[in-house]
Amino acid sequence: MQPYREMSREELLKEKKTLEVEYKKFQNRGLKLDMSRGKPSQEQLDLSMGMMDVLSPYSDLTCEDGTDCRNYGVLDGIAEAKVLLGDMIECNPDNIIIYGNSSLNIMYDTISRSMTNGVMGNTPWCKLDKVKFLCPVPGYDRHFAITEYFGIEMINVPMLPTGPDMDIVEELVAKDEAIKGIWCVPKYSNPQGITYSDETVRRFARLKPAAKDFRIYWDNAYCVHHLYDIDQDHLIEILAECKRAGNPDMVYKFCSTSKISFPGSGVAAIAASANNLVDIRQQLKIQTIGHDKVNQLRHVRFFKDIHGITEHMKKHAASMRPKFEMIVNLFEQELKGLEVGTWYTPKGGYFITYETLDGCAKNVVAKAQKAGVVMTPAGAPFPYGKDPRDSVIRISPSFPCLEDLTMAAQIFVVCVKLASIEKFLEME
Amino acid sequence: MQPYREMSREELLKEKKTLEVEYKKFQNRGLKLDMSRGKPSQEQLDLSMGMMDVLSPYSDLTCEDGTDCRNYGVLDGIAEAKVLLGDMIECNPDNIIIYGNSSLNIMYDTISRSMTNGVMGNTPWCKLDKVKFLCPVPGYDRHFAITEYFGIEMINVPMLPTGPDMDIVEELVAKDEAIKGIWCVPKYSNPQGITYSDETVRRFARLKPAAKDFRIYWDNAYCVHHLYDIDQDHLIEILAECKRAGNPDMVYKFCSTSKISFPGSGVAAIAASANNLVDIRQQLKIQTIGHDKVNQLRHVRFFKDIHGITEHMKKHAASMRPKFEMIVNLFEQELKGLEVGTWYTPKGGYFITYETLDGCAKNVVAKAQKAGVVMTPAGAPFPYGKDPRDSVIRISPSFPCLEDLTMAAQIFVVCVKLASIEKFLEME
Repeated sequence: MQPYREMSREELLKEKKTLEVEYKKFQNRGLKLDMSRGKPSQEQLDLSMGMMDVLSPYSDLTCEDGTDCRNYGVLDGIAEAKVLLGDMIECNPDNIIIYGNSSLNIMYDTISRSMTNGVMGNTPWCKLDKVKFLCPVPGYDRHFAITEYFGIEMINVPMLPTGPDMDIVEELVAKDEAIKGIWCVPKYSNPQGITYSDETVRRFARLKPAAKDFRIYWDNAYCVHHLYDIDQDHLIEILAECKRAGNPDMVYKFCSTSKISFPGSGVAAIAASANNLVDIRQQLKIQTIGHDKVNQLRHVRFFKDIHGITEHMKKHAASMRPKFEMIVNLFEQELKGLEVGTWYTPKGGYFITYETLDGCAKNVVAKAQKAGVVMTPAGAPFPYGKDPRDSVIRISPSFPCLEDLTMAAQIFVVCVKLASIEKFLEME
Repeated sequence: MQPYREMSREELLKEKKTLEVEYKKFQNRGLKLDMSRGKPSQEQLDLSMGMMDVLSPYSDLTCEDGTDCRNYGVLDGIAEAKVLLGDMIECNPDNIIIYGNSSLNIMYDTISRSMTNGVMGNTPWCKLDKVKFLCPVPGYDRHFAITEYFGIEMINVPMLPTGPDMDIVEELVAKDEAIKGIWCVPKYSNPQGITYSDETVRRFARLKPAAKDFRIYWDNAYCVHHLYDIDQDHLIEILAECKRAGNPDMVYKFCSTSKISFPGSGVAAIAASANNLVDIRQQLKIQTIGHDKVNQLRHVRFFKDIHGITEHMKKHAASMRPKFEMIVNLFEQELKGLEVGTWYTPKGGYFITYETLDGCAKNVVAKAQKAGVVMTPAGAPFPYGKDPRDSVIRISPSFPCLEDLTMAAQIFVVCVKLASIEKFLEME
């Protein structure tokens, strides 16, 4: 396969013609395929239907400690749910507060609380002239939407194959007291599928931020979302590492069962140091009497323990793995030799990122849309929706069935080829 | 029965001695009874156990519009849940956003949003020198805790048998732009059980606040929580009344099923004008992908419609009514003739308020505690926990069984008598 950059104008025009015929064919089929968001497929949702009768009208809905889960009370979650999620994210249950259905909601509330009432006695951010956040890019659009909503200035930090560029992170947090946090998806990152290296995590734990209320926002969304049973990425546990490094209070860790049980009907949690949890509970007790304990109990009774989650996640993996492999294989076959972009091969998570030649991402997404394939908008994985190189495209393989996804991936490949040729032709 | 104030010192001392013997007897029984919070009893919780199998592993968990409730999506609640709650609070379903399990959480988030990002384009409250709230007293302690947490100055407004003193409310909101809201529990109020009169509601809807972003916080917590099937209080629907009065945007209305299905595992909602909902959704879409739709569906399938809720609430009433009647009857028999306090006789809700002679409430609560009866702390129904006359005691009859409650009420009566006598003896 000859790289496009080495082709003559005539060769490119010929290739373009062939591709346009192929593209038209796809268009004529009037497809409607959605690869825009990390939504589980129906097949995956069916895996958790057993949750629907794990509690019955004849069940005893009391916890091990005698708490009636049906009534008010228990601000920070039932003990057995803390054990379950603690095992899942490798934290002491005592360091966990269980919330409602959404870790995004916890992150939002965490920033909101910092705005209005400050972090562990420090000045509320709304009283400061300037608040800034570091944003490893590409990253999760909903993270960036939160900081944007609160008027927090976002600073891009490049992602490397090892995680965020720690030289830049270390330098920025040390010199700028206005930098109050950094968004991280440390395992099978959204959108690239990168897991932070041991060195990266150790350097995170040893940061020397100028701001006393600087926190690492560690969104461990894909902690158990492996594609393989043995060939898994390993991530160093950040709370323990921060403690070892003498920075126990520097991190908030977030997780949920959204992509384990049902999105929207799962259980979410924050893990942090004892000092942070005292601070958080001060606010939480004002905000609510407590979260949904019956649903916490439902999760505990369904999964039983971490082994139950592990076994359950194997079933998710069996559904996801062929989709990831199909896409990566197709890219290897169809795109690698053309030298028109790059990608990582994730071992878990929900996304594959295709990085086009500079200036092609919007064009690819637009072309795909016109052929009936809805992708995440180009630019979305960047603060303010601005991809400086217009090159990053997030692919979400989970929702469509394998057959539809294969079609969508083929269309995507044609769109990448076309957009790349158009770029080379324009450059001449 | 001779009023204490007409008794001689000797008569009072004699009565005191008799009461102390009675009090000692109760103390010696080593009771542990909890009348501190408005928690449903186990008998009431059992009424909703049918919710636990209304959805099964073989159920179709899609909405009428085809939405799969198990997956992400639907920011503001499934349509059939909006209809159900809309019928419950007499609002158009289009004016409703369904949230998670807690209306308190919605109220907190509403204030928090107003602090950080303002109300419908007005200056965020955190940028203002001063923000104030009107607080009809006695009121709900958790309301006051929210405004206190955000540093909002609270101004007491006396409750009358018709609701808040509207002369004062009208005057204050008209002259002070810093007043941004008023806390209301308009039906079977917490803690007195008062329902706002038609005139009160109409005057609310016709307020002329100096602040454009003034909102009535209408916590309709006990909208269907009647004790009787025919003899019910009626409350004018505030959204419609505000619209009629030309003030459609002036009110947020809150509700939940916390005391209908399971506290902590119910469904909560806000109702407001279209303009307000646009404003709220702008923030909500940043905070979450959506709330628990499976639980929304569970509620819809269990109750089916508003008639289902009405029938269900009759069962709650059957459990609550004897408790309310026992207490009121005991007060009538034991306390009325002594002229040592006053109370309303609620036709619904969760509370009875006993108003002691000035300066006796703390003493009564302390005495009850020492005899094994935990009451809501005196002062709790007031901003900053300060009851200026030290006279209001909130009684929560729901949680104990009737037998225990009867004992607790008898102890309470003895404590009221003793504290009143002590007051008269001190006055001499």
